Amino acid sequence: MRQRRVKNLDEKLEALSSFIIEDPAACRGKWHEVFGNDNPIYLELGCGKGKFISTHAAKYPDRNFIGAEGQPTVILRALEKAQELGERNLFFICGFVRDVREYFEPGEIAGVYLNFSDPWPKSKHGRRRLTYHERLTSYTEVMREGGFIEIKTDNEGLFEFTLEEIEAASLKTIEMTRDLHAEGVTMQSPDARDITTEYEDKFVGTGKNINYVKVQG
Amino acid sequence: MRQRRVKNLDEKLEALSSFIIEDPAACRGKWHEVFGNDNPIYLELGCGKGKFISTHAAKYPDRNFIGAEGQPTVILRALEKAQELGERNLFFICGFVRDVREYFEPGEIAGVYLNFSDPWPKSKHGRRRLTYHERLTSYTEVMREGGFIEIKTDNEGLFEFTLEEIEAASLKTIEMTRDLHAEGVTMQSPDARDITTEYEDKFVGTGKNINYVKVQG
Repeated sequence: MRQRRVKNLDEKLEALSSFIIEDPAACRGKWHEVFGNDNPIYLELGCGKGKFISTHAAKYPDRNFIGAEGQPTVILRALEKAQELGERNLFFICGFVRDVREYFEPGEIAGVYLNFSDPWPKSKHGRRRLTYHERLTSYTEVMREGGFIEIKTDNEGLFEFTLEEIEAASLKTIEMTRDLHAEGVTMQSPDARDITTEYEDKFVGTGKNINYVKVQG
Repeated sequence: MRQRRVKNLDEKLEALSSFIIEDPAACRGKWHEVFGNDNPIYLELGCGKGKFISTHAAKYPDRNFIGAEGQPTVILRALEKAQELGERNLFFICGFVRDVREYFEPGEIAGVYLNFSDPWPKSKHGRRRLTYHERLTSYTEVMREGGFIEIKTDNEGLFEFTLEEIEAASLKTIEMTRDLHAEGVTMQSPDARDITTEYEDKFVGTGKNINYVKVQG
């Protein structure tokens, strides 16, 4: 994603710090205290400017959401959105999540969203892709029964890789399509199609297909 | 499928013989002469009592359809349906199709439907399953560009096997779902859900999931 230069970035992030979890490792096993309720918790890794996760948070006040994003100038936009919405079921982690197991206990997560993740096109960087099979397994290890992983990407190479890694991780595919926005298509979860990211919006109407797969966690 | 005892079966089949292709191998490369036009040809292997294929034939007069079924008492019902409909874009092969390449030339088929195929549950019978990878490959060998294979089954074992065989045959999955009749779901081809078989109709409303996968031919 394009980086903007942002004046006084640190000050701006500081002003929105009530939406930021500064020490997510310290919340491990205690996320329900952070949210102040026992509602299920959904995690988006690489939430970008936050449209997807904040739309979810507004639509589902009885669910909790965490967006993680490594680029400060990008997450600033997500934080601004969260402030506008004023939802109290949405927090952000500012930083790249190396291993979800450092931040979450087994059973603490109800679902993981990976939207338009960095494809890391060089094969030597395969392990960095968020759908590398060891990463997929780590997501399932923090997941409660009935949990899922939902993945969207415009990148064909990343999608092929992802399907192979799902196989390698012995995960069960629930649903998949190579053209999520094809006319008339609806998925088992209509949100998969209806709730888009900023990046995704650029493709809709251009004819470029969006790949989607949902696996059991 | 349950076999009925049918009185005078041979006579009844004889009376409907205008819908039967007696020597499909002789039609190889000449199916467009059989249909009398150059419309695309779709093949259902194991058409049972024919609801699926005859519904297609009625809905798409500009497409040609062939239903193959090995059980004479079952295909009788399909032939009766075809007679009632009076469509001239629908023919039947009475018999088990060992190898589609014996009946069709490369490029002659636009799509193959496999609906609720015999699961052959014993592993030693894996090669008999219609989605065995060598069979999948044989379908693609008679298929024209843009062709597809669409598969539905209620049998979880057969579905897992099928996904593995699709992988083994290096075929590209376009779309899949484990719950075709889940509320609100529509596929890229809405017919996949809307046009059902007699067998499938028994499941709708019972909560039993129907598995579906579409692969590029």
